[in-house]
Amino acid sequence: MSQQTAYRTHHATDVTEVLVGEHVTLAGWVDRRRDHGGVAFIDLRDNTGLVQVVINEEEMARPLRSEYVIEVDGKVRQRPEGNENDHLATGKVEVVAEKIRVLAKSDALPFQVSTALENESENKLPGEDVRLKYRYLDLRRPAMQRNIKLRSDMMRAARTELDKLGFTEVETPTMIKSTPEGARDFVVPARLVPGSWYALPQSPQLLKQLLMVAGVERYYQFARCYRDEDFRADRQPEFTQLDMEMSFVDQEDVIAMAEQVIKAIWKADGYDIETPIRRIPWQEAMDKYGSDKPDLRFGNELIELTDYFKNTPFRVFQAPYVGAVLFKGGASTPRRQFDAWQDWAKQRGAKGLAYVVFGENGELKGPVAKNLSGEERNGLKEAVGAEDGDAVFFAAGARESSQLLLGAVRVELANRAGLLDPKKFAFCWVVDFPLFKRTDDPDDDDVAVGHSKWTSMHHPFTMPSKDWIDTFDEDPEHAMSDSYDIVCNGNEMGGGSVRIHRDDIQDRVLNVLGITPQEAQDKFGFLLEAFKYGAPPHAGIALGWDRTVALLAGADSIRDVIAFPKAGGGRDPLTGAPAPISDEQRAETGVDYDPEEDED
Amino acid sequence: MSQQTAYRTHHATDVTEVLVGEHVTLAGWVDRRRDHGGVAFIDLRDNTGLVQVVINEEEMARPLRSEYVIEVDGKVRQRPEGNENDHLATGKVEVVAEKIRVLAKSDALPFQVSTALENESENKLPGEDVRLKYRYLDLRRPAMQRNIKLRSDMMRAARTELDKLGFTEVETPTMIKSTPEGARDFVVPARLVPGSWYALPQSPQLLKQLLMVAGVERYYQFARCYRDEDFRADRQPEFTQLDMEMSFVDQEDVIAMAEQVIKAIWKADGYDIETPIRRIPWQEAMDKYGSDKPDLRFGNELIELTDYFKNTPFRVFQAPYVGAVLFKGGASTPRRQFDAWQDWAKQRGAKGLAYVVFGENGELKGPVAKNLSGEERNGLKEAVGAEDGDAVFFAAGARESSQLLLGAVRVELANRAGLLDPKKFAFCWVVDFPLFKRTDDPDDDDVAVGHSKWTSMHHPFTMPSKDWIDTFDEDPEHAMSDSYDIVCNGNEMGGGSVRIHRDDIQDRVLNVLGITPQEAQDKFGFLLEAFKYGAPPHAGIALGWDRTVALLAGADSIRDVIAFPKAGGGRDPLTGAPAPISDEQRAETGVDYDPEEDED
Repeated sequence: MSQQTAYRTHHATDVTEVLVGEHVTLAGWVDRRRDHGGVAFIDLRDNTGLVQVVINEEEMARPLRSEYVIEVDGKVRQRPEGNENDHLATGKVEVVAEKIRVLAKSDALPFQVSTALENESENKLPGEDVRLKYRYLDLRRPAMQRNIKLRSDMMRAARTELDKLGFTEVETPTMIKSTPEGARDFVVPARLVPGSWYALPQSPQLLKQLLMVAGVERYYQFARCYRDEDFRADRQPEFTQLDMEMSFVDQEDVIAMAEQVIKAIWKADGYDIETPIRRIPWQEAMDKYGSDKPDLRFGNELIELTDYFKNTPFRVFQAPYVGAVLFKGGASTPRRQFDAWQDWAKQRGAKGLAYVVFGENGELKGPVAKNLSGEERNGLKEAVGAEDGDAVFFAAGARESSQLLLGAVRVELANRAGLLDPKKFAFCWVVDFPLFKRTDDPDDDDVAVGHSKWTSMHHPFTMPSKDWIDTFDEDPEHAMSDSYDIVCNGNEMGGGSVRIHRDDIQDRVLNVLGITPQEAQDKFGFLLEAFKYGAPPHAGIALGWDRTVALLAGADSIRDVIAFPKAGGGRDPLTGAPAPISDEQRAETGVDYDPEEDED
Repeated sequence: MSQQTAYRTHHATDVTEVLVGEHVTLAGWVDRRRDHGGVAFIDLRDNTGLVQVVINEEEMARPLRSEYVIEVDGKVRQRPEGNENDHLATGKVEVVAEKIRVLAKSDALPFQVSTALENESENKLPGEDVRLKYRYLDLRRPAMQRNIKLRSDMMRAARTELDKLGFTEVETPTMIKSTPEGARDFVVPARLVPGSWYALPQSPQLLKQLLMVAGVERYYQFARCYRDEDFRADRQPEFTQLDMEMSFVDQEDVIAMAEQVIKAIWKADGYDIETPIRRIPWQEAMDKYGSDKPDLRFGNELIELTDYFKNTPFRVFQAPYVGAVLFKGGASTPRRQFDAWQDWAKQRGAKGLAYVVFGENGELKGPVAKNLSGEERNGLKEAVGAEDGDAVFFAAGARESSQLLLGAVRVELANRAGLLDPKKFAFCWVVDFPLFKRTDDPDDDDVAVGHSKWTSMHHPFTMPSKDWIDTFDEDPEHAMSDSYDIVCNGNEMGGGSVRIHRDDIQDRVLNVLGITPQEAQDKFGFLLEAFKYGAPPHAGIALGWDRTVALLAGADSIRDVIAFPKAGGGRDPLTGAPAPISDEQRAETGVDYDPEEDED
């Protein structure tokens, strides 16, 4: 990337042996300065990397400090033998400075950003509020530069693939009508219609469906979405999704398309993803992995013991479901660590975490062991596939919550065993979801839309699967939907569904959800109306883009792949947003508009 | 683009002579139906175009109506001789239906969208509110499909070029701190920090400058921007700009880059734009075209007559500026049309529009003629370059407002003469702008930021030109800036500037604008702070994307190139936004939070 500008003839990493003997002009930051025998060595950094600048004149070197922005005229030469740096692309050469111009100075930094720190521990980083307050410095760190660049490369890869597949990029509006997506809307007062508000979209769901009715056929967009939720780690009030919708397709078509796009995205960072990606029915994911987003980088599936304990004398195991997860080599775990597991389970809302230990001598130990019958004790090792020296954790109770607990244990065990390699990517589709779930589902972080005991597993616009189209409203508990989630390394990377495109089916789904025709009319009457004018069958999928980038980047937090994320509570330590507004601004918003006053 | 899905083996326009004899499955809309001799002919429409389907069985044809969505199994055959349609890509063949499945029905449409109307006048279209209420139908019209597709193609072309040029796409946040861009902010109450608000960005100006401080070097984004302005035709409360910013560059670098991007964008629709694009200094644009965004598709430059009338007896022309614009062949214009020109001028805030007519016999006529001296009358034809049969319009008064009036006359004359060909593109750069302008500038639709008689011509972050860096604050009236606008066919397509990257210069500019250090600290202290840590020289440009697409599409209004635009007053006739919110929602926003109550 040699882009000559007013300030440079070359970028740092253009300076290799082919330029030896040539004059170059470079521009960038002083990454590091070392002085040795009256000579100053500067690592000059630009967005391609580093090159060493040698300054023989003391006067020229004197003013230069870390993070000064400089322009350097100089001559490229081979480094003296023995001084080469194999870690640098430019490590065989150096630039002997002839003229240096300081373009901007820098105060002492609140924390160091030098490339030299790259291979050291990042533990020296300050707390997140300081990183965000000085985000423009935090982003100078090579790890962050890579994340920002990778995000852009991934977007390009996705777009290029979607273009090949005949997709049209369409921008949908940000200021829309509040739609029933389940979470809380951010709202914007409409000055020109006092007392009225826009909502920021939780997703472009209804708009992209309208684009299908409009005949666009294949739409995509990197869509900004907004949810006003209480702060949780790794949630952002605004986030990006890669939103795709297609007409005249079924679930298979969308999955095939999405696999091509995901393959292209991973390819942008050099990874070859094998397709077709394995599919796991939702029930199997729950049974085997205790999760609707199973981490398949390791095995250790859940073991169901409901049958095994069907005549147990142990009251705790006299439950609708009993399951276990093996703790390989866990027998040597000290008692206080098992106690810590109890606390861990309680923090997740469980009562505790039963376990037994298979001693080296075949002895069964642990608080639960004595409660089991002799037969149960004798057969347990075989039933769970353990060996002497292993331990096993149990959960008993309602099927779903017990499985979720065991699923979390399974992942935490793998985590502690160092099995969660961020550079290994295990994908799967989770398919065959129920159409509805109970509104009292304790795992549900969405708000129920209607006033029924049923809410949508995905959203109210999801098509019942073919077998259930006629009967889903008679048996909402068992009805299945045409929906699918794409999961990577235990993260839900995205999901989608075949959408309802007929108003009669949509009416019946809304009815199950307890949404009255009047409410439906108020909230999305325009969609129901659109369905009267020839809506094609359509389906789509959206990838949570921040999460997708974080996965490929190997970042711990989505905040590390967003240029300017918010801190907890939606605060921005950099700009101080949100902030009070002036009385004049407030008056203009119209939020204090009183229609009765107006009538006088 | 043959993309086989569950519903089709081919798209409509794939069906050409090479498929004769083959079975195909198609899916799409019934664009038109004709019945002839017991046979039904359906134009089947998908997003590639049309193909004719022949239905011989009456029963199969009976249910089909306009805009029904159908799937057709059939066999391709050559059309009978004489029945070919050369206007269609598929006009040599037709598909004989063997099976038809109705995928969705359609009620009678509120207005027609058929492709058959394409070549007819669009006058049959209903009013804009109806078009927007049924936007999903309006978008089915071929003209709108083309606009949406072109917009996507243009985005891809721009991105591909920016990628070649080493740009990184970075998304900046939507919920930010209010920044001083000049217009009114849309604001969003922050529930988690009651009494505080986010603002929606009027542009990502400060954030992109921070990205430069962060070392990103080349950033771009199709950025959504928001301005809460009173409704004007062809303004939208939210709009898109193609936002580009570069480090270590000067004005020349940005202009060269932008020309490459613009060339690539126009190329996407088959046009070759000549570069380098002509540059016109701002003062010359005002003098010759009476506009800072001159339309160069035609000549007819303004003629300055200040000197010519320096001793005039006519009091109206005893003015700081007198100018004229030629009305070629205008002598035959009826008096009532000249009267209409007076009204036209008054609507623009002028007192009237003086004119004279050069009669076929050399006689000077018109209300102004008798006020001029004999000498003035005799020399006028030569002075304005007129011939017998022409007319000329005058403006006299303050230089700028008179020139703007004449500039508008110039364009209106060309418009009436049919010289404004939307398929001809005349670009220019307007350069050498003043750094400041008076706050009482009647043309200014921006709000002054500070409390001084000076406001920024572009924005407060614009760099004074090199010659003025030391002295701009001593002579704000004459100080020039390093800024540039790109103009096409009389439209400001975009603009940008070299930015200030040193806090000392930024402080002095803010001082001229009457912004106190405390205000500066409150509003964008974070930017001034960032400048303390090694900010590179940087510059950028943004293209108003809606306008750019409208220009290339030949659309009259930007609303024709936006999928879901707002109508007047920011209303959305489709969804009913903005709308009242519930008391519960309002309570949650925190807008009624009373800090004093909280203290109790």
